[in-house]
Amino acid sequence: MPADTAAEHRLVVTLSCANQPGIVHAITGCLLKLEGDITESQQFGSPDTGTFFMRVTFTSPYSRDEADPIFDQVREDFAMDLNVWDANGRTKTIIMCSKDGRTLNELLFQQRAGTLPIDVPVIVSNHLDLQPMAYFYDIPFVHIPLVKNADGTDNKADAEARLMQLVNEYNVELVVLARYMQILSDELVQKLEGKAINIHHSFLPSFKGAKPYHQAHARGVKLIGATAHYVTADLDEGPIIEQRVHRVNHGLTAGDFVDRGRSVEGATLAQAVQWHAEHRVLLDGRRTVIFE
Amino acid sequence: MPADTAAEHRLVVTLSCANQPGIVHAITGCLLKLEGDITESQQFGSPDTGTFFMRVTFTSPYSRDEADPIFDQVREDFAMDLNVWDANGRTKTIIMCSKDGRTLNELLFQQRAGTLPIDVPVIVSNHLDLQPMAYFYDIPFVHIPLVKNADGTDNKADAEARLMQLVNEYNVELVVLARYMQILSDELVQKLEGKAINIHHSFLPSFKGAKPYHQAHARGVKLIGATAHYVTADLDEGPIIEQRVHRVNHGLTAGDFVDRGRSVEGATLAQAVQWHAEHRVLLDGRRTVIFE
Amino acid sequence: MPADTAAEHRLVVTLSCANQPGIVHAITGCLLKLEGDITESQQFGSPDTGTFFMRVTFTSPYSRDEADPIFDQVREDFAMDLNVWDANGRTKTIIMCSKDGRTLNELLFQQRAGTLPIDVPVIVSNHLDLQPMAYFYDIPFVHIPLVKNADGTDNKADAEARLMQLVNEYNVELVVLARYMQILSDELVQKLEGKAINIHHSFLPSFKGAKPYHQAHARGVKLIGATAHYVTADLDEGPIIEQRVHRVNHGLTAGDFVDRGRSVEGATLAQAVQWHAEHRVLLDGRRTVIFE
Amino acid sequence: MPADTAAEHRLVVTLSCANQPGIVHAITGCLLKLEGDITESQQFGSPDTGTFFMRVTFTSPYSRDEADPIFDQVREDFAMDLNVWDANGRTKTIIMCSKDGRTLNELLFQQRAGTLPIDVPVIVSNHLDLQPMAYFYDIPFVHIPLVKNADGTDNKADAEARLMQLVNEYNVELVVLARYMQILSDELVQKLEGKAINIHHSFLPSFKGAKPYHQAHARGVKLIGATAHYVTADLDEGPIIEQRVHRVNHGLTAGDFVDRGRSVEGATLAQAVQWHAEHRVLLDGRRTVIFE
Repeated sequence: MPADTAAEHRLVVTLSCANQPGIVHAITGCLLKLEGDITESQQFGSPDTGTFFMRVTFTSPYSRDEADPIFDQVREDFAMDLNVWDANGRTKTIIMCSKDGRTLNELLFQQRAGTLPIDVPVIVSNHLDLQPMAYFYDIPFVHIPLVKNADGTDNKADAEARLMQLVNEYNVELVVLARYMQILSDELVQKLEGKAINIHHSFLPSFKGAKPYHQAHARGVKLIGATAHYVTADLDEGPIIEQRVHRVNHGLTAGDFVDRGRSVEGATLAQAVQWHAEHRVLLDGRRTVIFE
Repeated sequence: MPADTAAEHRLVVTLSCANQPGIVHAITGCLLKLEGDITESQQFGSPDTGTFFMRVTFTSPYSRDEADPIFDQVREDFAMDLNVWDANGRTKTIIMCSKDGRTLNELLFQQRAGTLPIDVPVIVSNHLDLQPMAYFYDIPFVHIPLVKNADGTDNKADAEARLMQLVNEYNVELVVLARYMQILSDELVQKLEGKAINIHHSFLPSFKGAKPYHQAHARGVKLIGATAHYVTADLDEGPIIEQRVHRVNHGLTAGDFVDRGRSVEGATLAQAVQWHAEHRVLLDGRRTVIFE
Repeated sequence: MPADTAAEHRLVVTLSCANQPGIVHAITGCLLKLEGDITESQQFGSPDTGTFFMRVTFTSPYSRDEADPIFDQVREDFAMDLNVWDANGRTKTIIMCSKDGRTLNELLFQQRAGTLPIDVPVIVSNHLDLQPMAYFYDIPFVHIPLVKNADGTDNKADAEARLMQLVNEYNVELVVLARYMQILSDELVQKLEGKAINIHHSFLPSFKGAKPYHQAHARGVKLIGATAHYVTADLDEGPIIEQRVHRVNHGLTAGDFVDRGRSVEGATLAQAVQWHAEHRVLLDGRRTVIFE
Repeated sequence: MPADTAAEHRLVVTLSCANQPGIVHAITGCLLKLEGDITESQQFGSPDTGTFFMRVTFTSPYSRDEADPIFDQVREDFAMDLNVWDANGRTKTIIMCSKDGRTLNELLFQQRAGTLPIDVPVIVSNHLDLQPMAYFYDIPFVHIPLVKNADGTDNKADAEARLMQLVNEYNVELVVLARYMQILSDELVQKLEGKAINIHHSFLPSFKGAKPYHQAHARGVKLIGATAHYVTADLDEGPIIEQRVHRVNHGLTAGDFVDRGRSVEGATLAQAVQWHAEHRVLLDGRRTVIFE
């Protein structure tokens, strides 16, 4: 019996395991025990990896903490990676930024408007440029500068340690690189696996090296775009969450390309963060399953 | 035991019923009996109508005919509208057209290319203009002219009777109005409920009366579009399956609007027919649930 | 000879007049006198109204004030409505808002980012909700409440007089209704003709009356959109500047429709304001010519 | 005086030259002599290459052949590359294809529908698969097989000579590679410079090597696209005319990616061919200026 029989909780279960008969039947058996009313549910069996994915939203008189152990037997029987979430919960998120405020503003505004279910306990930047924006949104701003010394040494390890300290202090579940523009160390990337989202520009064809928007401009592309992806050790190669494009033409300067690109980057990143925070993104090897 | 133990069937189950606990559990219980391997599954509980919708694709050693009665108990217990389909089946479809071949060509080409799972036993038109296209695709073409007599009478009832004869003769499951441009009688619409799809132009704002593309041009709209919907007695008001738009500008003539509009109409209709033929469209009152 | 021979001015000429031979030749003759280097130029002869439109951007050693009288003869010869603008100028703009900050934030952020060439001397609202946003962007905020008295009278005339006072005081060239949600009087609309831009939601089909997003949701539309247009006495019927749409599906609530709709409205309005402020929008009767 | 004073000709002039004062004035001077009524005109001065581009459409009592020499003085004065075209003319086009008919069908249907101003005197293929489609559209089909002999030699030179023979025989102005899937020799590419358009798939990021759609699928991209470009010796690196994308998701197979990709490729190629045939594409080094 639920602790509070009058309460109604909105819960989300996400899971993945090797595909086999009986998975959904077992899960919905648990939902029956929880007197769960399904409001949304999606499954996908990946033909490539043989993995089965499921996300189900339901209401129940049981709370998240009461509901979680009900799935223990199923977790064991199917060697399942299964999580129970509070659907009304907000993902604790650190946003890291640098100098360009477009993507940061998009995230913060959507957060305040209520369309992005994240809490941002702190904004971290290696520059001070965006501190006024943090003030406006009433969010603490931590300046962690990156210093290169004359003898070739730098403070990167210290800076990353300071970041991890914040991650732990605030029980941070997600780190969003909103044009943070710094490569994270392999150690940090490993600690944040599946919990850090990056945004980068994207073109057809792609361009290596510096000033990609300028290269794309010189090449005369007709579309510019952005890719939001999980951070992995292999830079810019993590599982893709969302991609969007914007049409450009010969009349635009390379500077215009940058402006429009920033706007697409902001919208793309915000969409990726929203899906992640709503527990709609599951990992299928190098690919993502998005239960929109 | 399945009749042919070596066979593998790909089946689709679609269902809707009043939302209540245990639906998915009951369905997946049937799938276990059928040794079904789920490859794709989606559910949706409509907060507006209180109806629950589900579509599940699975492989099984049992054929469609063997599988169907397995769901009888669940049908009864949940007062459920449940259908079992062969996922490799092709929907028997009559296409009705008039003079403009753009949408007809889109449907037939996609059908031949294999991306549109329909069989077209016959094309029906009130004009002969598109007969050569039917010949090219090797599909019988039935000319059912509409005649208005001098005394005000017409042959509409006869023409519709001839159509229904074809529907019955070929066990037709879907009638697609590919710019057929004739209003069907209420009786015919009722007989074809949920089985007839129409396409019409769409604008923001909308325009009543003749030559809508010309009206939209005069109004200076920047977007033109198309809506594919099920046919109901209330003309152009049936449940919407798909909508698409195309950008236009001041440099285009009203004739250009018509050309571009036809192209959007074709693509929109083809998408709607594909989803219908793949059993991805379920009716939720005046709205559709699309399990993409 | 220009006053300052070393200076380089970037100027824009926009014009419209009855189509006739020699227009462009006459204009480019003036540009030769101004030692103008054309960087961008577009013309359009409307077959519907017989009006010719032109926009040309050029650099010149002459300033805007020096350049303007050079066109006087041409203005007279062709009965031409011709304006010379400083291409680096910023359009003085009052933004009017109410309670919803999404569109206001979009405009202000783009303004600060430098992609929207407007100066906003003051923000006007009938509510206080968005005052903090005005503070953040360091822009004076004038609260002009609208009062309905018990005896049926209201202060609308006074409120509009106060607005016109601000328009005159700041030499305002553009009034943007960023979801201001109040109908302007016919007198005010006339004074602001071609100088006031409004945004409203748009659907296919369109919906009359209250809560349009909820109506669209009940109808099950698959696209929602927005239209930015000049304000005319005929509400929501002014010349359209820009239209955009956003895809929606059955899984979204009416509230989600509103959220997404606000986002499209903001982007659509910002685009319309940018084109207007860059002198890219010319009026062709009820239609607009947009020289993108 | 025009030869036929009652006739009205619709002409297009396209030009490029080093940017300098007086270009448009000189051109419009010629138009005055031709009693030309401008219906559409666009100019662009490329800040990157210092080249000026112009396209102007006008009606005139003079024919193309009468009008052309009127521009000779301007051609000389400005070292201008200037062409006069009949706006109602149709570009003589050879379409080359292989086995996949999607793009060919798109081109031929649009050609017949009248939206693509090309004449196709002959279709060339190295396979016979698409001959029935050529028959349907009543266009001669020339089979030029490519043979690899056991001794390592092939008939490529002969095949290309046969193609050039057709190009010359029919005064072909444009060669469209509608998924022809064969690399042309450098000699042939040079002969066809600016007169051959190719289509290829495009992704963000891009993929090298065989089966690109399958690679994109394995990488989990969310967008697939296509690029239409002029053919140059540097394969897939010619000036881009048009790019489009299509949204994909985790539920689609690699085969679905191919199907959808073909459809985008067809639409993208048709758009590029239309712009080329309407003389809307001008070359600016490695980039294209598109006067939409």
